Amino acid sequence: MAHEHLDDVKHYLLDLQERLCAGLAEADGVAQFHEDSWTRAEGGGGRSRVMTNGGVFEKGGVNYSHVYGAQLPPSATAARPELAGRSFHAVGVSWVLHPKNPHVPTSHGNVRFFIAEKAGEEPVWWFGGGIDLTPFYPVVEDVVHWHQVAHAACQPFGDDVYPRYKAWCDEYFYLKHRDETRGVGGLFFDDLNDGDFADCFALQRAVGDSFLDAYIPIVERRKNDAWGERERDFQLYRRGRYVEFNLVWDRGTLFGLQSGGRTESILMSMPPMARWEYAFEPQPGSAEARLHDFLQPRDWLDEFAGKTAQDTSGELS
Amino acid sequence: MAHEHLDDVKHYLLDLQERLCAGLAEADGVAQFHEDSWTRAEGGGGRSRVMTNGGVFEKGGVNYSHVYGAQLPPSATAARPELAGRSFHAVGVSWVLHPKNPHVPTSHGNVRFFIAEKAGEEPVWWFGGGIDLTPFYPVVEDVVHWHQVAHAACQPFGDDVYPRYKAWCDEYFYLKHRDETRGVGGLFFDDLNDGDFADCFALQRAVGDSFLDAYIPIVERRKNDAWGERERDFQLYRRGRYVEFNLVWDRGTLFGLQSGGRTESILMSMPPMARWEYAFEPQPGSAEARLHDFLQPRDWLDEFAGKTAQDTSGELS
Repeated sequence: MAHEHLDDVKHYLLDLQERLCAGLAEADGVAQFHEDSWTRAEGGGGRSRVMTNGGVFEKGGVNYSHVYGAQLPPSATAARPELAGRSFHAVGVSWVLHPKNPHVPTSHGNVRFFIAEKAGEEPVWWFGGGIDLTPFYPVVEDVVHWHQVAHAACQPFGDDVYPRYKAWCDEYFYLKHRDETRGVGGLFFDDLNDGDFADCFALQRAVGDSFLDAYIPIVERRKNDAWGERERDFQLYRRGRYVEFNLVWDRGTLFGLQSGGRTESILMSMPPMARWEYAFEPQPGSAEARLHDFLQPRDWLDEFAGKTAQDTSGELS
Repeated sequence: MAHEHLDDVKHYLLDLQERLCAGLAEADGVAQFHEDSWTRAEGGGGRSRVMTNGGVFEKGGVNYSHVYGAQLPPSATAARPELAGRSFHAVGVSWVLHPKNPHVPTSHGNVRFFIAEKAGEEPVWWFGGGIDLTPFYPVVEDVVHWHQVAHAACQPFGDDVYPRYKAWCDEYFYLKHRDETRGVGGLFFDDLNDGDFADCFALQRAVGDSFLDAYIPIVERRKNDAWGERERDFQLYRRGRYVEFNLVWDRGTLFGLQSGGRTESILMSMPPMARWEYAFEPQPGSAEARLHDFLQPRDWLDEFAGKTAQDTSGELS
C-alpha cells in the first residue's frame, strides 16, 4: 500500500521535473538544462538538472531525489519521537532560479513526500512543499499575481489553506538576524497527513503545478526591463541575504550538509555570484530602499488585489 | 581582582586593534580603516574598523568588542554547566583580510577573554584565540613561514603548545561537507585558564602580536604577482567556501547571528564578492587543482622547513 503511494508520488515528481525544466527552458529561450545523476551509498540517489548563463537565468536548477535508509535521521524525528528507528523513504523535487536581470525575481519551490515504516505497523506518510518569490525591485502587480495563483491552487482544499500556508511561508523564510523575510513569500507546508492520501497528494500536486503559472508571467513582464551596474550591484548584494538564509536558517540545507547529503545538489540553491558590503544602507527614497517595505509579512491579496496597476505603482502605504 | 584582569586585557586589545590597523594600512598603501562605534542594548558595544577597495585589500576589518550581561549565553555554558547563570564579560578583537590579488591569501585572527562572575564566589576567566591563513594559489614557502612564526610565538610557553594549537586549528576550520580544511591552518585555542593569569595573558598576547609578522611578509611577496580573469574567478569560487564555513560551521558566527549580536560586525568576515559554480572541478594538473593538497592537515614544519624554496616550488609529495 505505502509503496503504491510512493510510486504514485515518484511518478508525479519525475513528470513535474520534466515539465518545470521544459517551461523554464522555454522562458529562457537560450540555454538548456544539463542532467547529472548521482547515487547515495546509504540508499537512493537523484537526478539534478542545472542551467547556467541562459538568456534569462544566470543559474537555475531543478533537482529530483529519492533517498532511503534503515533509520529516519534525528532531525526528522525531533518533533515526532514516535517515529524514531523507523526505516524511511524521502522523495522530492527542489528548484531555484537566479535570473540575470535584477528586475526578474529569484524564485524557489519544493515538493516532498516521506514514508516511515516499521514491521508489523502501518506506514506513516506525510507531504511537504511550497513556492516562494524573492524580488530585488518588487512590483506590487507581480506580487499580487504571485499570491493570486498561490491562492487559487489552495482554494479547492478549503478557505483556510492559503492563509495558513501563506503565514507559514512568511514565518519559515525569515532572517532573524536581519529582521526581514527572504522575499514576498508564497506557500509553505510540512507534515501534511490529515485526511486521506488522495486529498493530500492532490494538494501537493496543486502547489507543484502552480509554479509555472505563478512565475513565468512575472519573468515575461520583467525580463526586458533595462538595468545597469547599479541594479546589478544591488541584486548581488541582496543575493548575499539569500546565501545567509540558506546557510544559517534553512533547516533542509543545514540538515543536508551536516548529515552527508550530496553537497553540490544541496548547494545548487546558491546564487552564481553574491556580494557583501559592510553597513550598506540604500539612499532614502531610492528604488533600492523600497524593497524594505516588501520584506515584512503583508496580506497582499486583501491590501492590493482590488487595485489597478496604476494604484499600486508607487510606494506601499 | 577580576576587573583588573579585564582592564589589562582591554588595554591590550585596544592597542592591538590600533597596531593591526596601522600595520595593515601601511601594507595596503592606499586605503585607510574607517571606524564605526556601536552599543548593545543588553550591555557593552564595540569599535569596528573596516577598509574597502584598498591597494592590496579588497576588504578588511579589525573589530574590537566588549559585551557583558547578567547571564552567560547557553552556548557558552553548554560545555561548562557549572557556569550557567553567572554574569559575564566578553572582550575580543577579530580581524579578516580579503585581498584583491588572488595570489595573496585571505587571513583571519581573533583573541578573546571571558570572565564569569557570581556573588560570593571566585570569578572564572579564560582566554581564546588564534590566527589562520587561507590561500588560493598556495606557495609552500609562504605556508612554512606562516607556521614558523606561529611556532615561535608558542615556543616560550612549552614545546607542546604549537602542536596542540596547530592541530586544534586544523580541526576547527574544517568543512565537513567538503572534506577539506578552510585553509592551511595556524593556531586555535579556547578555554585557556590553566596556570596563572599572567602566563595565559602572555600567551594570548604572543598569538595576537604574531599576526603581522606572520602575514605581512606573505602579502609583500605576492601582492605584485600577475593575475587575470582566470585567477579572479577561482578566488571568487574559493571565497564561496569561506562563506560556507563561516555561515554553516563557525560557532562564533552562528552564535552571534542567532542570539542577537550586531549583524554587520559579525558578517564583516564575509568576502566582498563570492561565487558558486555547480559541480566545478579544476583541470587535473592545473594551478587550481594544486590547492586541494594544501587543504588537509599537514605537518608543514617537519615536512618542509628544512627545504629550500626551490625544493618546494613544485607539487606537494
